[in-house]
Amino acid sequence: MAATKKLGKQTLALTNPPIIVGTSSVVGPKEGQGPLGKNFDLVLSDSLNGEKTWEKAERKMLRICCQKAIEEAGLTQENIDFMMAGDLLNQLISANFTARDLGIPFIGLYGACSTMFEGLALGSMIIDGGYANHILAAAASHYDTAERQYRFPTEMGIQRPLTAQWTVTGAGGVVLADSGRGLAVTHVTIGKVIDLGINDPNDMGSAMAPAAADTMIRHFIDTGRKPSDYDLIITGDLASVGRALTEQLVKQAGYDISKNYTDCGILIFDPSQDTHAGGSGCGCSAVVLTGYLLKEMKAGKFKRILGIGTGALLSTTSSLQGETIPGIGHAVVIEAYPLNTQ
Amino acid sequence: MAATKKLGKQTLALTNPPIIVGTSSVVGPKEGQGPLGKNFDLVLSDSLNGEKTWEKAERKMLRICCQKAIEEAGLTQENIDFMMAGDLLNQLISANFTARDLGIPFIGLYGACSTMFEGLALGSMIIDGGYANHILAAAASHYDTAERQYRFPTEMGIQRPLTAQWTVTGAGGVVLADSGRGLAVTHVTIGKVIDLGINDPNDMGSAMAPAAADTMIRHFIDTGRKPSDYDLIITGDLASVGRALTEQLVKQAGYDISKNYTDCGILIFDPSQDTHAGGSGCGCSAVVLTGYLLKEMKAGKFKRILGIGTGALLSTTSSLQGETIPGIGHAVVIEAYPLNTQ
Repeated sequence: MAATKKLGKQTLALTNPPIIVGTSSVVGPKEGQGPLGKNFDLVLSDSLNGEKTWEKAERKMLRICCQKAIEEAGLTQENIDFMMAGDLLNQLISANFTARDLGIPFIGLYGACSTMFEGLALGSMIIDGGYANHILAAAASHYDTAERQYRFPTEMGIQRPLTAQWTVTGAGGVVLADSGRGLAVTHVTIGKVIDLGINDPNDMGSAMAPAAADTMIRHFIDTGRKPSDYDLIITGDLASVGRALTEQLVKQAGYDISKNYTDCGILIFDPSQDTHAGGSGCGCSAVVLTGYLLKEMKAGKFKRILGIGTGALLSTTSSLQGETIPGIGHAVVIEAYPLNTQ
Repeated sequence: MAATKKLGKQTLALTNPPIIVGTSSVVGPKEGQGPLGKNFDLVLSDSLNGEKTWEKAERKMLRICCQKAIEEAGLTQENIDFMMAGDLLNQLISANFTARDLGIPFIGLYGACSTMFEGLALGSMIIDGGYANHILAAAASHYDTAERQYRFPTEMGIQRPLTAQWTVTGAGGVVLADSGRGLAVTHVTIGKVIDLGINDPNDMGSAMAPAAADTMIRHFIDTGRKPSDYDLIITGDLASVGRALTEQLVKQAGYDISKNYTDCGILIFDPSQDTHAGGSGCGCSAVVLTGYLLKEMKAGKFKRILGIGTGALLSTTSSLQGETIPGIGHAVVIEAYPLNTQ
């Protein structure tokens, strides 16, 4: 059996770390009014985005986002070898139709709200392995399309419990390249599907926390690193309820992340915005990563971060049939490259 | 810019071709009565598979299939680095819950009915690149879960048009390894999303044919090969209507595939089984590949095949909103390894 680039059981150390050469973030009006509002590249004035349906609005938002990321990288669509993307809509119609419009060879991914990080993880392997010069990884979600698909049409005005999260209207895109200088993806930890028996679709933070914790702990074991090796550890969309549970689960395994851990779903909305536990959705971690984290890293605020995209792998059918909610978390390490020490 | 393993625009030549060390095919009763019935590893006597719902039946079928493929490879779940799988159900509940039960680090894919080939393509890159010793690629579909999600519950007895296909109840799994002898994946061609404007969800063969043809033509251009370099060229689930259209489109580009091209959806059912245009679904190409093609290759009937998994990337929502049906095709070349000439 050949030696692999694996560290331990689930982590990969990239020997030619892909460089992040273009990013883009497009969000809806509510996200634009939140604490990170000024960081996003484009804030839509209307969440219908000039379209007749929420689904078409989501798709157009993703297309604009992908085009902006490619443009920021100084490239055109023809330069992108593969696009790796997904969304929350049944059969990934946002990503599929966007890939059709862009004409880039396409690999469809579904990791629920972890999709952006799943794409970064896979795209990094494909670049590092020498299969592509440029990869576009992207993900999107939309509050109104998610509400009507998973819960109730927003027009019905159903009251939401306090543990519920608010699906972010947003799209994020990253262009990875096989050469250059800047921020790079240096490690990837692929998660397992974990299910501790939570069955309340209005408390997805708790459902995903065990998977986030499992991937985080596995990353520390595989790499021999400790939480303090990172300036920031951030999960995708556990929001306030899931964040506290994750911190506790990771502590039980002997790792203290209380000083440098937060969640994208907490950062994106202010409590005054009445989003209850915080943000969620594919777009949540995608726009906080592209609109905020990577920009702060470029500005020198964070040198090395561990990001864990988190997803709740339920469907309305699985819940109706009495199933619990499995979760997953995929992690990537992003840091300045060339590295100071290696 | 570094040199990549790319040939032309969309094709990858694998330098350490992953070996197929385990396969499994599990099908429903109707598929068991078809022309390939005796080839499948397990034919269920009842499509409810001992469960209370079709969805639970599909999931159990996929789990059994994965376990059998791992067993045939002489491995256990702990030996599999990553599982790459998907299905047709909203939010991939068959694959997600199977990954939970198996406890293997999981990468969720959605390529509609092309998912098995998407998994083989990506899994091959990951093995070839040195990121894993063993990958499990799998896909499943179920006639009754697909009918009730996409069309009408089967209990309603809606009449189907003659261009319609029959979703295969079946699950296929392949274990890829980084060493060994036998059949190997030597090339991968990642497809683009192509949409020539077909909008009839009861004629998905015609909707997918342009994507299948595009990938096939691209493969010939990228590799410099011609159709006669393959003993067999086979698409996933275009069935009779899509097969004829594909042959015609490929001919217009100057390639004659009339002598050695067929489709999994044609092989799996006999016209007397009243499936109209033929089989479809993730399970169609997955079980024809694992139950028939790879076995015939081992027996020496085919030495080198070009398989193109095909997917129709619509959803019920996209159709209701007046969208046409985009398609995709991902191709892999499978041949005996070590190769005779290289």
